[in-house]
Amino acid sequence: MSENGVTARRSKVLTIDTMNATVKKVEYAVRGPIVQRAVQIEKELKEGAKKPFTEVIKANIGDAHAMGQQPITFFRQVLALCSYPELLKDGNFPEDAKHRARRILQGCGGESIGAYSGSQGIECIRQDVARYIERRDGGVPCDPDNVFLSTGASDGIVTMLKLLVAGEGRSRTGIMISIPQYPLYSAALAELGAVQVNYYLDEEKCWGLDISELQRSLEAARQHCNPRALCIINPGNPTGQVQSRQCIEDVIRFAAKEDLFLMADEVYQDNVYADGCQFHSFKKVLFEMGPEYSNTVELASFHSTSKCYMGECGFRGGYMEVINLDPEVKEQLSKLVSVRLCPPVPGQALMGLVVNPPQPGEPSYTTFMKERTGVLSTLAEKAKLTEQILNTVPGIACNPVQGAMYSFPRITLPERAVKEAKEKGQAPDMLYCMKLLEETGICLVPGSGFGQRDGTYHFRMTILPPVDKLQILLSKLKEFHQRFTQQYS
Amino acid sequence: MSENGVTARRSKVLTIDTMNATVKKVEYAVRGPIVQRAVQIEKELKEGAKKPFTEVIKANIGDAHAMGQQPITFFRQVLALCSYPELLKDGNFPEDAKHRARRILQGCGGESIGAYSGSQGIECIRQDVARYIERRDGGVPCDPDNVFLSTGASDGIVTMLKLLVAGEGRSRTGIMISIPQYPLYSAALAELGAVQVNYYLDEEKCWGLDISELQRSLEAARQHCNPRALCIINPGNPTGQVQSRQCIEDVIRFAAKEDLFLMADEVYQDNVYADGCQFHSFKKVLFEMGPEYSNTVELASFHSTSKCYMGECGFRGGYMEVINLDPEVKEQLSKLVSVRLCPPVPGQALMGLVVNPPQPGEPSYTTFMKERTGVLSTLAEKAKLTEQILNTVPGIACNPVQGAMYSFPRITLPERAVKEAKEKGQAPDMLYCMKLLEETGICLVPGSGFGQRDGTYHFRMTILPPVDKLQILLSKLKEFHQRFTQQYS
Ligand SMILES: Cc1ncc(COP(=O)(O)O)c(C=O)c1O
Ligand SMILES: Cc1ncc(COP(=O)(O)O)c(C=O)c1O
Repeated sequence: MSENGVTARRSKVLTIDTMNATVKKVEYAVRGPIVQRAVQIEKELKEGAKKPFTEVIKANIGDAHAMGQQPITFFRQVLALCSYPELLKDGNFPEDAKHRARRILQGCGGESIGAYSGSQGIECIRQDVARYIERRDGGVPCDPDNVFLSTGASDGIVTMLKLLVAGEGRSRTGIMISIPQYPLYSAALAELGAVQVNYYLDEEKCWGLDISELQRSLEAARQHCNPRALCIINPGNPTGQVQSRQCIEDVIRFAAKEDLFLMADEVYQDNVYADGCQFHSFKKVLFEMGPEYSNTVELASFHSTSKCYMGECGFRGGYMEVINLDPEVKEQLSKLVSVRLCPPVPGQALMGLVVNPPQPGEPSYTTFMKERTGVLSTLAEKAKLTEQILNTVPGIACNPVQGAMYSFPRITLPERAVKEAKEKGQAPDMLYCMKLLEETGICLVPGSGFGQRDGTYHFRMTILPPVDKLQILLSKLKEFHQRFTQQYS
Repeated sequence: MSENGVTARRSKVLTIDTMNATVKKVEYAVRGPIVQRAVQIEKELKEGAKKPFTEVIKANIGDAHAMGQQPITFFRQVLALCSYPELLKDGNFPEDAKHRARRILQGCGGESIGAYSGSQGIECIRQDVARYIERRDGGVPCDPDNVFLSTGASDGIVTMLKLLVAGEGRSRTGIMISIPQYPLYSAALAELGAVQVNYYLDEEKCWGLDISELQRSLEAARQHCNPRALCIINPGNPTGQVQSRQCIEDVIRFAAKEDLFLMADEVYQDNVYADGCQFHSFKKVLFEMGPEYSNTVELASFHSTSKCYMGECGFRGGYMEVINLDPEVKEQLSKLVSVRLCPPVPGQALMGLVVNPPQPGEPSYTTFMKERTGVLSTLAEKAKLTEQILNTVPGIACNPVQGAMYSFPRITLPERAVKEAKEKGQAPDMLYCMKLLEETGICLVPGSGFGQRDGTYHFRMTILPPVDKLQILLSKLKEFHQRFTQQYS
């Protein structure tokens, strides 16, 4: 063999210079440098390193169970029964849990959750989703054929965006997203090579959405791309606002007038805490506006098992409902989802339970309601606590956390800190959050990871830590902010 | 309001003409028109329609549980324990199952499988995967940092392809895939806009892979694109062959010489039936070839919970191992997978059990081995049965089913049938399979869905139906083929 020297001759096929350039542009702050450093610090602590703190408190990601929230008993009982159907003979499991498990198993090939399901999801679960939507929306009809189960909401959102992206140059698809935004959107748009069209939420008006700002953003975008869709997150991540019915109606009217496809990210639909606030689904409002709108405006709405009161992120369950989708496009959507075979069946099962929980009179009802209410009222308490304490700190201004799981307070940073960050090529709130992590063990995400108006600085903090830890976190944060401000003044 | 007439004015934002054009090009035969018609026929039967058969037999997809294969008891016990940890107190569960469940739960945030995991997968499971690979490959070292858990193998494959796609026009990335192929590859390449570079397996040599054919294919491709990766499926889908050690060595040498990134789809690594055949992993062979190769050739290898003896498709578990991946590219890969947050945790747990099953001396060992051996020996029996019976039919020629779960026999079709199909704008084997379905209820996938040499016709049939049903299927198929041949002669 005369192949000596292969080693010397050969460089890598795949390098940073020869890889997919659009992938390189993707950014994802929720799991960015701060989180990587936090993981490292945790390791250092384990190995006995001395730090001014003994544990890292993660308030960077909406991951309820990781923060100690307990799963809903009924859901987990049914999942255990589906996983190991021998347990259907076990007298310790309530009858309603067994009934749900049998129903799910009957919807599976070979009555096993180990079989691939239809790509759109298990039929009986899609039916349950449809009935849930009808109940939620006061009877507005929902066709199970319009429901696509997904691998978390993330999957549904990316799939829908993928269908929308077309054209080149000035006719390239633009997608309007709120700033601050949940970075899945910017990451997906970068990967798909779509144009990100920013519209700003109004911090002065509790992160409200203003139609004139939508109009400004749209008109500016039309100069250089073809804006085709408008994404809304309600209740909001990272900003925690809950939109009024009037606002939703205005947005729908705007989308109709401007020929925009609506994408409503409603994964926090049960997470509403503030007095006077209420969740209104885009679909319900659309149908209340009459056939002129309900027969024409194209809408995709997304839900997930990851948030609300269940917080079951690891199962990667979710669904999307499509309304007024062109039938040919729907066929293409069905084909596209079939390539990945199917969403995870345990996640489908869980989504099925979320939309069809224990009913009054069933043996698990009381416990279920107690657990559900417990989680939601604790979240409401923590939302209030967070807002109140943060607003006692000079240089921190926090809007009410009306819903979702986050506060997004504005922080005033001394000029010297801003200068130092710029010299380091860092966003000023990244410098702030990194210092906070190193000095206190608190892990937040800088506002720059979500987008914000130039010259303003924020961080996103989840309200998920248990109340006692949250209190510690908030008082450490307060101390840190004062120290940081002094140090740089 | 002066918005009357909105209805009349407004056409759809998203139509077949304005949607993503690359998505339109995607094809996915395994869930194509035949399967859609099969689902419809099942509904018709349920509603009482009279047909020449009473049930649809699905041999179109490698979905073992749907065909009645039972799950491995130990795996499902652990999954039930992880889902509902109250069961850890239940004396009916074996200690080794509880031990595994505890280990998995300790790897999860908040000790709940409902928490998001790290995007690369749960650390202790990645360690178990690494140890499994080391055992499998006779001690070749495996770094858990090179292991990425995935949402089925599909997810890993698409992610790796995504990194590889770059360039425009003549420098656009080409990806070499075997023909016949598993249509995930062509679908993903179409969606990513990469150039599909076909190399043909040699039907005369039991679907063997020939280096001169690789060379031909590569040189032809270099005229119009930049071929950068070579995908191999071993054991093969749809063709059921198992590659010899020599062949794998030749392929690696070829990849090294020609600067190709290797992608080894090894999801059927336990599915080897034929005497004299054995599974050799690409990684093991690579390392046996010495540092000249093992230090340079870039390789990604894929595995899944969906196949082998477990057949747990619904859980969407899988992993990929990357070898010699450029560190900067690995960082980009980590970032890319973080956008989707994490693979489904129940699927991760299952993958963890597959790589770390009960050991000799543990309470579940005997049952586990009995179940595992039972499934694999039944599959071996069905592989032989399928080949033997098909080869008794004049006009059907079937290579030995050495491994995987499929036979891909060649069928001779009368000229009149070919002509009729062409007049209908249909692939001739699609016409054949559609008629087969309508007349017998048997659901297969036409060879044209996988690619085949021009002028040859095939179908893919899984060997998964239970032995008695498989026998009925094969004899019905035999009858049908004879009838079809007569009818068109
Ligand atoms: C607004 C919003 N949409 C979508 C998601 C994705 O959630 P998942 O994919 O876990 O369902 C999240 C997760 O935090 C979110 O906050
Ligand atoms: C060769 C091959 N690769 C990959 C897959 C994908 O499997 P999964 O995504 O279920 O792991 C399959 C499924 O049939 C296959 O046959």
